[in-house]
Amino acid sequence: MPERPSGHDVPTGAEGGPAAGPAPLPPPPEPSHAERCRTLVASQSRGTLCTLAVEPAGYPYGSVASYALDADGNPLLFVSQMAEHTQNALRDPRSSFLATEPVPDGADPLASGRATLLGDLLEVADADRPDVRERYLAAIPTAAYYIDFGDFTFFRLTVRDIRYVGGYGRMSWVGAAAYAAAEPDPLAEAAAGIIGHMNADHAEAQVLLCRHAAGRPDTTEASMSAVDRYGFEMVAVSPAGRAAVRLGFPEPCATPEAVRKAMVAMVNEARGPSTAAGG
Amino acid sequence: MPERPSGHDVPTGAEGGPAAGPAPLPPPPEPSHAERCRTLVASQSRGTLCTLAVEPAGYPYGSVASYALDADGNPLLFVSQMAEHTQNALRDPRSSFLATEPVPDGADPLASGRATLLGDLLEVADADRPDVRERYLAAIPTAAYYIDFGDFTFFRLTVRDIRYVGGYGRMSWVGAAAYAAAEPDPLAEAAAGIIGHMNADHAEAQVLLCRHAAGRPDTTEASMSAVDRYGFEMVAVSPAGRAAVRLGFPEPCATPEAVRKAMVAMVNEARGPSTAAGG
Repeated sequence: MPERPSGHDVPTGAEGGPAAGPAPLPPPPEPSHAERCRTLVASQSRGTLCTLAVEPAGYPYGSVASYALDADGNPLLFVSQMAEHTQNALRDPRSSFLATEPVPDGADPLASGRATLLGDLLEVADADRPDVRERYLAAIPTAAYYIDFGDFTFFRLTVRDIRYVGGYGRMSWVGAAAYAAAEPDPLAEAAAGIIGHMNADHAEAQVLLCRHAAGRPDTTEASMSAVDRYGFEMVAVSPAGRAAVRLGFPEPCATPEAVRKAMVAMVNEARGPSTAAGG
Repeated sequence: MPERPSGHDVPTGAEGGPAAGPAPLPPPPEPSHAERCRTLVASQSRGTLCTLAVEPAGYPYGSVASYALDADGNPLLFVSQMAEHTQNALRDPRSSFLATEPVPDGADPLASGRATLLGDLLEVADADRPDVRERYLAAIPTAAYYIDFGDFTFFRLTVRDIRYVGGYGRMSWVGAAAYAAAEPDPLAEAAAGIIGHMNADHAEAQVLLCRHAAGRPDTTEASMSAVDRYGFEMVAVSPAGRAAVRLGFPEPCATPEAVRKAMVAMVNEARGPSTAAGG
């Protein structure tokens, strides 16, 4: 892959700027790719279904589909019997579903995350339909207009393998078992609010953390770019340039309140003896 | 397909409200599905490529790709040799490319247009590379950062069949020859500006057109919802409810100035004898 000018994909702080300060720190904890996939797929409700065309036979066929998820993160679709993708799946269940993170205006689309879930697309068994119906209506409220329309049927794509691409240089295959066992990030919905608050009201605290907890004593400005249960990422600015920095929380945080407490503890620690010595 | 509460897909004025006024008018001219496909595909620069996976073998594999178009509207892709979709296409060229219209905030995604272009994805021949490179850089200016990176290669998806879905109830298969021969709508980029201007400054003229040119004498409000080379669509409000109305231009319009002249002529005609009699 080409090298890009931004440090977007460099969460560990291992690259993205010249080394500065003392010996390198151990890499901070971060979500596994299985967790990143679960979080990405759970954050969206529409993607691209790929099936195998009846005619021209065997060609892969992409179509738009809304989806919900079952307890294991398998996509649940509600499709018309007349639709091409339904006819395709009835003939050959081999399918995939592509979910993509929204691309911010002006951003490079290939730097955003996407997950291709490969598996078999089969009609939902009668016994499972009440649960699936409830999950689908919760995810796609507008489906209430046609949920009981006779021509439509629920299908489940049972995942067997996932290709995850989190952006440049962050990609891997994720197995179905790891994906099913992973939990979506509990901070996913709150992340934008936490980032906005930290950058509006706590810029100085972030500089302190970069200087004293992230081994970048020459930091002059810092702003948060991402947060998840295990830690957060900042862009640290110094005379040498911009660098991506990740710090781990002392323990995983499931709520914004837990993040607030962890931040306070980390900033207090950064203000400790090392501040007196180095600040 | 389920019936939807809006008249989104009813461009001919043949449905969407009770019949009113004199005998039905002949259907106004509108773009063919081949033209709608060419316009949709030309309006975007990113979509979903579907290839056939090497492992698990034969599964359809969806991935994100930026694209340009050749003179016949075939997608041109610039892909890494290492990428899964490239390895897939090298093994089996059967592919498709899904392009979708952007979905307005809060709108039903299944009411927006999409086109699935099925065909064979093959490396571009050396002789064609300069032309393809130029087209790609014009469509994807940020590709300048990596256009000469050695690992990347141009591929062309030569279309053989297209599934077009313009929204609820507007769908068909479009052949490759019809697609290649069709021209993207010359007003595509100007349409939003034309619609904004007509609705801000010419609401009364639109009511007049609905009453006297579209056979809806009970219209009390009207606003433009779409415009293309052959005509335009309005939402007409009357005591009986809302209805979609389409009117054709006297002749196809290739520029906003041609639209302006056509509109003036149509409004003048609507103000003629029938105004005196019926208004």
